[in-house]
Amino acid sequence: MPADPAAFAARGLPAQIEGSLRFQPKFDAEGLIPAVVTDAASGEVLMFAWMNAEALARTIETRIGHFWSRSRNKLWKKGEESGNVLRISDLSTDCDQDALWLKVTVEGDGVACHTGERSCFYRSVELGSPASPETPLRRA
Amino acid sequence: MPADPAAFAARGLPAQIEGSLRFQPKFDAEGLIPAVVTDAASGEVLMFAWMNAEALARTIETRIGHFWSRSRNKLWKKGEESGNVLRISDLSTDCDQDALWLKVTVEGDGVACHTGERSCFYRSVELGSPASPETPLRRA
Repeated sequence: MPADPAAFAARGLPAQIEGSLRFQPKFDAEGLIPAVVTDAASGEVLMFAWMNAEALARTIETRIGHFWSRSRNKLWKKGEESGNVLRISDLSTDCDQDALWLKVTVEGDGVACHTGERSCFYRSVELGSPASPETPLRRA
Repeated sequence: MPADPAAFAARGLPAQIEGSLRFQPKFDAEGLIPAVVTDAASGEVLMFAWMNAEALARTIETRIGHFWSRSRNKLWKKGEESGNVLRISDLSTDCDQDALWLKVTVEGDGVACHTGERSCFYRSVELGSPASPETPLRRA
């Protein structure tokens, strides 16, 4: 299984990256690319995570979500312990090819967040007032 | 308008960050936090961008999407030139408070991507084969 960015095409010029039908993902200085995970049925954003080239290659080949855990500093097959594996129905990239969007079905008990919430995004920021150290959150 | 992370609460311990109703956004070493932008009506992911503390503070206060342009190295009010301003209906944060999700209505001609596409995510990666430098994209 390829483990470095050379598994993917080298980056072309901006116009080629935007217009091309060749996948040229951009990994940052730490070798990572951001990945947005949404529920394929509801469209809800479930989580935000990072992939290195190996995680991305495994995700593409197996259609199961793999990521790079920055806290544990290792490859992370999401749900490997909990059973809440992410089955990918679509994986898209943006104009600059420096971000990924995964549409998934969460297997197991359907929970994506380690806190037990369905989505990691379970709190909203109060809008319309100046931001401050007291800016409150409210539960969704 | 506050321009540095001190505009927001200092970060607490992990359990406080996950359970708290106080907004404690985490900015990375470059002072940025990732922001996922979805269409409030369709749920489609429109774009992925970055905010610094000033962009986030302006977004919270005005309900209009502001970001940090890494390519131009400056504050960026999305749509300032095109008229395709992002009106925010909800701004949420994840368990770790190190990512943001904005639900928006795109004003103007309703196009979020500078290429003229409605969403920046207009190409999908072909799944199910080993990743390689030839991995193709197809238009959504």
